[in-house]
Amino acid sequence: MTFQTIRWNGNSLSLLDQRKLPHEEIYIEYNEPLAVISAIKSMVVRGAPAIGVTAAFGLALASLKISTTGYKDFKAKMDECCTLFIEARPTAVNLKWAVMRIRDIYSRGDEDVNRLKYLIIKEAESIYDEDIKINIMMGDNGEGLIENGDSLLTICNAGALATAGFGTALGVFRSAFNKGKKFMVYACETRPFLQGARLTAWELMRDNIPVTLITDNMAGFLMSKKMVNKVFVGADRVARNGDTANKIGTYTLAILAKAHNIPFYVVAPLSTFDKDCKNGEAIVIEERDSKEVTEIFGLRIAPIGVNVFNPAFDITPGGIITGFVTEKGIINPPF
Amino acid sequence: MTFQTIRWNGNSLSLLDQRKLPHEEIYIEYNEPLAVISAIKSMVVRGAPAIGVTAAFGLALASLKISTTGYKDFKAKMDECCTLFIEARPTAVNLKWAVMRIRDIYSRGDEDVNRLKYLIIKEAESIYDEDIKINIMMGDNGEGLIENGDSLLTICNAGALATAGFGTALGVFRSAFNKGKKFMVYACETRPFLQGARLTAWELMRDNIPVTLITDNMAGFLMSKKMVNKVFVGADRVARNGDTANKIGTYTLAILAKAHNIPFYVVAPLSTFDKDCKNGEAIVIEERDSKEVTEIFGLRIAPIGVNVFNPAFDITPGGIITGFVTEKGIINPPF
Repeated sequence: MTFQTIRWNGNSLSLLDQRKLPHEEIYIEYNEPLAVISAIKSMVVRGAPAIGVTAAFGLALASLKISTTGYKDFKAKMDECCTLFIEARPTAVNLKWAVMRIRDIYSRGDEDVNRLKYLIIKEAESIYDEDIKINIMMGDNGEGLIENGDSLLTICNAGALATAGFGTALGVFRSAFNKGKKFMVYACETRPFLQGARLTAWELMRDNIPVTLITDNMAGFLMSKKMVNKVFVGADRVARNGDTANKIGTYTLAILAKAHNIPFYVVAPLSTFDKDCKNGEAIVIEERDSKEVTEIFGLRIAPIGVNVFNPAFDITPGGIITGFVTEKGIINPPF
Repeated sequence: MTFQTIRWNGNSLSLLDQRKLPHEEIYIEYNEPLAVISAIKSMVVRGAPAIGVTAAFGLALASLKISTTGYKDFKAKMDECCTLFIEARPTAVNLKWAVMRIRDIYSRGDEDVNRLKYLIIKEAESIYDEDIKINIMMGDNGEGLIENGDSLLTICNAGALATAGFGTALGVFRSAFNKGKKFMVYACETRPFLQGARLTAWELMRDNIPVTLITDNMAGFLMSKKMVNKVFVGADRVARNGDTANKIGTYTLAILAKAHNIPFYVVAPLSTFDKDCKNGEAIVIEERDSKEVTEIFGLRIAPIGVNVFNPAFDITPGGIITGFVTEKGIINPPF
């Protein structure tokens, strides 16, 4: 990999600014937890696993900033910061999952604040390292689904840029590519934030994996012309019944895939599975600023004053998902 | 209507430059038929009925430019120009239909070149006037499909900007609105050329018809949330079996509508029905420049060198279309 999405520098965090890609590769260095929260909200970093890892390091930064040596005060300040991180974005459950792992470190009896700071940093580093390992395991588990000559479709960016490294859906593509399989990928550009055009195309081109960019509304046409034979997407939260929140447009692809008898796979680590969530209706769908729709890189593309609806995610019913690729293997229905 | 898509000035043609909307309302004046062909190709004017009307006026300009008084020479030059107009864009059949109407004028025995020039201009003006009348008739025929409280979905721009005036799908909305019906319209932004964001939103806002802009990939989510209860689209060509070519993304909306039991209507004049075309497979789908996908208003949004697939239209099978609204009434299946 020639880039690093998230980099921990021992006492600061560097993030590749994904808002600037593919035009500029700029790393922003963070020393303050509130600035990291702001980076998550404004999508400097995005992708369910990546924002989980980022939050863990953000809490490591928070612990370093707390000057008290009294445990009670330390815990209260950390708890407050945990809440702020969890609230940064509502849909992806990995954020909460990572925050809870850090919270566990300082909530299980040890009250030595300096040791806790050390252990929190260690835990954040573990979450980072594990994420890469888990992605590689998912790649190994999923690559068998890809055959020579396949024409694959994906949406958004479920790649190295959405994780600590390697990627979920794109990790499966990477594993298959590394085994010498010949296939191609259609990347939906993924309006409004253009993660497909800006990030997935860039990332796959870096690895020489053949990629063709399409607009989101071309997916149906491709399927009707038998130009796509499998769909792989990431996930932001999976409910107990298999209902899956992922980038807006995923549900449309799943309906199209079903109508054309095309397998539809979700690639996600177990940290994305929310056992407290009964079904898709219980998942909060984040609505984002209308400017994401009406402006592209600050350039206005719609009339001033137009009404906009901008949900960032949708829910794909578990019943139309062919299978989940996880680090423990492939889960098939019923879920 | 506070704007005029196409204006004939007696010896020149003015077109509202739709590439510049909604930011600027600029009219370009044309004196040369080749410049009009170029305007059709580059989408200064677009929309199946509008490019038919434009071609008719372009041929009127061509006739005025021919200095010979010899009929044979006149006819040869006109025929050549007819071919160039038909080839300007391959998918919409209205272009060919309008050219054939002009061709008939000078091919039925009358060999007085000066009178033919007069008759050609008259015919182009008739095509223009008829198009507006037909749109109003379609509006009257279709408005009964719209009820108070409806939430409608459309793609691309099937409005006054796509016709001589009033519009096809948007004409139906206008008729219902003029009758005092209360409803709202979701406009798909329609990548890559953004006709929904730039043109439909602008046009409906001008008429105070409530419109909300969404990205194309949000349509499925809206349907799953019961936020849309009818879909109305235009058409570029309808084959004998009802298969319909229209803006890329239309097929996806039709599949989604079917999956959610939502009626899906095509609004198109009889000039869009191609009786020489057996089915959708016989319709040529235009592929356009990759820059339409990788650049927006000249601003690059994807990596340099990325592969792009950019079909401008898709085919919706007649079997999943609820009905066609035409100037003669509503046609229901089987077609």
